[in-house]
This record gives sequence, C-alpha cells and structure tokens, in this order.
Amino acid sequence: MRDAFHEDLDKISDDLVEMTTMVGTAMSRATTALLEARLADAESVIASDDDIDALRRQIDDRAVDLLARQQPVATDLRMVVTAMHMNSDIERMGDLARHIAKVARMRYPESAVPEPLRQTIVEMAQVAGRLVQMTGAAIADKDVHSAIEIGRVDDEMDELHRKVFAALLGQDWSHGMEAAVDTTLIGRYYERFGDHAVAVANRIVYLVTGRYGTEDEGLER
Amino acid sequence: MRDAFHEDLDKISDDLVEMTTMVGTAMSRATTALLEARLADAESVIASDDDIDALRRQIDDRAVDLLARQQPVATDLRMVVTAMHMNSDIERMGDLARHIAKVARMRYPESAVPEPLRQTIVEMAQVAGRLVQMTGAAIADKDVHSAIEIGRVDDEMDELHRKVFAALLGQDWSHGMEAAVDTTLIGRYYERFGDHAVAVANRIVYLVTGRYGTEDEGLER
Repeated sequence: MRDAFHEDLDKISDDLVEMTTMVGTAMSRATTALLEARLADAESVIASDDDIDALRRQIDDRAVDLLARQQPVATDLRMVVTAMHMNSDIERMGDLARHIAKVARMRYPESAVPEPLRQTIVEMAQVAGRLVQMTGAAIADKDVHSAIEIGRVDDEMDELHRKVFAALLGQDWSHGMEAAVDTTLIGRYYERFGDHAVAVANRIVYLVTGRYGTEDEGLER
Repeated sequence: MRDAFHEDLDKISDDLVEMTTMVGTAMSRATTALLEARLADAESVIASDDDIDALRRQIDDRAVDLLARQQPVATDLRMVVTAMHMNSDIERMGDLARHIAKVARMRYPESAVPEPLRQTIVEMAQVAGRLVQMTGAAIADKDVHSAIEIGRVDDEMDELHRKVFAALLGQDWSHGMEAAVDTTLIGRYYERFGDHAVAVANRIVYLVTGRYGTEDEGLER
C-alpha cells in the first residue's frame, strides 16, 4: 500500500495525464476547425480551454496543499515541484490549440490554410497528437526513454515547420498576405506545442537522472 | 531583523529583480541589433541568454532548497511557489529577446524590419522596456497597484501589434514575403514578451489579494 503522500502525488500525476488527453482533443479539434472551416469545432475548442485552465489551477492548488501538509523533502519534493512545472507547460499547449481555433474562427467560412499547405498542416497535427500522447505516457510511467523519444519526434515537427517557411518563401506563393500571416502564426503555434512537450519530457529526464536536457531552440527564426 | 526564511526569500526576490534587469538589457540590445543590423549586438544577446538560463536554474534550486529546509506553510509557501512561477515567465522573456536577436542575425547585413514599420517596432521596444522595468519594481515592492498598471501598459503593446498587422495587410506592402514572415514573427515576440510581464503581474495580484487576474488573450489571431 502507498502512503498518503504518494497517493496524493499519484492523483496529481493522473490529473496531468488527464490534462494531456484534454489538450490532445483540443488540438485535434482545432486542426479540424482550421482545415475544414468548422465554426462549431473552433468555438468548442475556445470554450473548453476554460476547463483546461480550471484543471491547471486545481492541480496547482493541490500541489501547494500537498507541500503544506506533507512537507516532502529530497526526491519527493522535487517530484511535486516538477509536477507544477509540467502543469504550466501542458496548460500552455491548450492555449496554443485555442490560438489555432481562433484563427479558424476568424477566417470562417474560409479555411485559413491555402491548399498546397494542407498536407503539411495535417502532418504537423499528427505529430502534435503523437507528442501529446507520448507526453501523457511519459508522465504516467516516469519513463526516461520515452521522454527522450519525444525530443526525436519533435524534430519531425521542426522539419515540417521548415516546409511551411519554404512554401511561404517559394516563388509561387499566390495566396496573398493574409494567408501568409495566418500560415506563419499557425506554423509557429504547432511548433511551440511541440516545444512544450519537449519541456515536459526534459523535466522527466531531470527528475529521474538529475541532469538537464537541452532546450529546444526551434528554427533559426 | 528578519528570520532566516524571509532573508532567503528576499534573496530570491532580489535575484528575480536582477533577472528582469538582464532581460531588459537583452531586449533593448536585440531591438538595436534588429533595427540597426548590428551583428555584434545580436550575438551578444544570444550568448548572454545562457546567463539568464543559469540564473533561472539557480533561483529554482534555491527555492526548492528553501522549501526543503524551512518547510513553509500558508502565505510563506505561496510566496516561494509564486517566485518559481515568476522565474519561468521572466526566463521566457529572455528567450523572446534571443528570438528577436536571431532574426536580426539571420538578415544581417540587412535589417529585417522594413522602413515603414521601424517606428512601430521602436515603440514596441519602448513599451517592452517599460513593462520589464515595471515588472522588476512590482516584484521588489509586491505592489498590487503597479501590477495592475502593467496590464494597462500591455494594452499599448497590443495596440502596436494591431498596427503591425495593419501594415502587413495594407494595400501597399511592397517588401516581399520574407520581410512579411519576419515581421509577423517579430510582432508576435514583442507581444508575447508583454504577455509574460502580465503573467508575472497576475501572480503578484494573486499573492497579495488571493484573486486571479485575467489571462491576456492578445489579439484575435
């Protein structure tokens, strides 16, 4: 049987995993809203971000309460502090899904993404889905190997982000400035989503090994 | 005389203020690098971000150590946790200065900012400078009124951000796609810099009043 501290910590960990599921759903729905110009999906993502924010506050409050009641030290203390940091990163991933949904809503009934870039955005969304799913699994298992794998999958995101810039800067961009601005920001939102997954992964690596991972620098822009 | 706990907490608070000074210098230098196409300034901002990251880790380690040794509860505990969150936000402001410096370096010996937008970027940088200075002062004084004032000054940043979009989407954009992509991202970096100042301010408001501020949503894109 686990003691009270570890039971409470498990509950926090479960809630973080639950939050990754909510964020994964939000990102997937935001992508649908963006590519299919579905207003209801966009509105749903924007509204449900409040639930993610509420869960974040609940986790934060619970972590502070745990620190106050149990006064953990050493590794136990580090685990609670790490959970609080991961909480911030995952909540921020939800914000990025909301940003994408807002672009979708702003351009409705058009899609903000020009035809030649649809496939790249589909792939960015798929990578985002894998990353957030892996993030949840890595939190649940406190698994360093899957945390390191997250960094590798995020390299695919960076590669796709490069493709977005290549399309924008190619000779044959004929979709106007509004689509260019939208696409620049959308690309950035998916890329940042990946960066936060990497940040969570690095926290797990630090927790387990005591060593810091490297911050993802994204592209040179 | 203050007890050991509050002395340690004061030291953390002093270091956070010191970090805002470093970040303010980085942002100011990044803007110079961007507008005047000064490679040495860009390189200096990029290199010195490591110092900001190192100070961030030092503050984090010190906060964890303080929790372990002093086992604070209630308001004392909340103050340490708040300091850790503010630490993350301020470090991220440093990253945004580095992002701007990287755009400057990438476009050297040209400036990434087209002539008609220079004045707007100058003003965004001025607002950024005020915001980070006010953030340092609000941390030092734990002052709710100046924290609330940060939100108002950030409205000026959002207004300038709107101007950037208006210039990009105006009839007479003649600076090409590369400058459009750069400008879109640069505008976003200054705006996010302001958002993190607001996040720190909201933490101070919460600490002092027990009530959450509203998250800055930025623009509808």
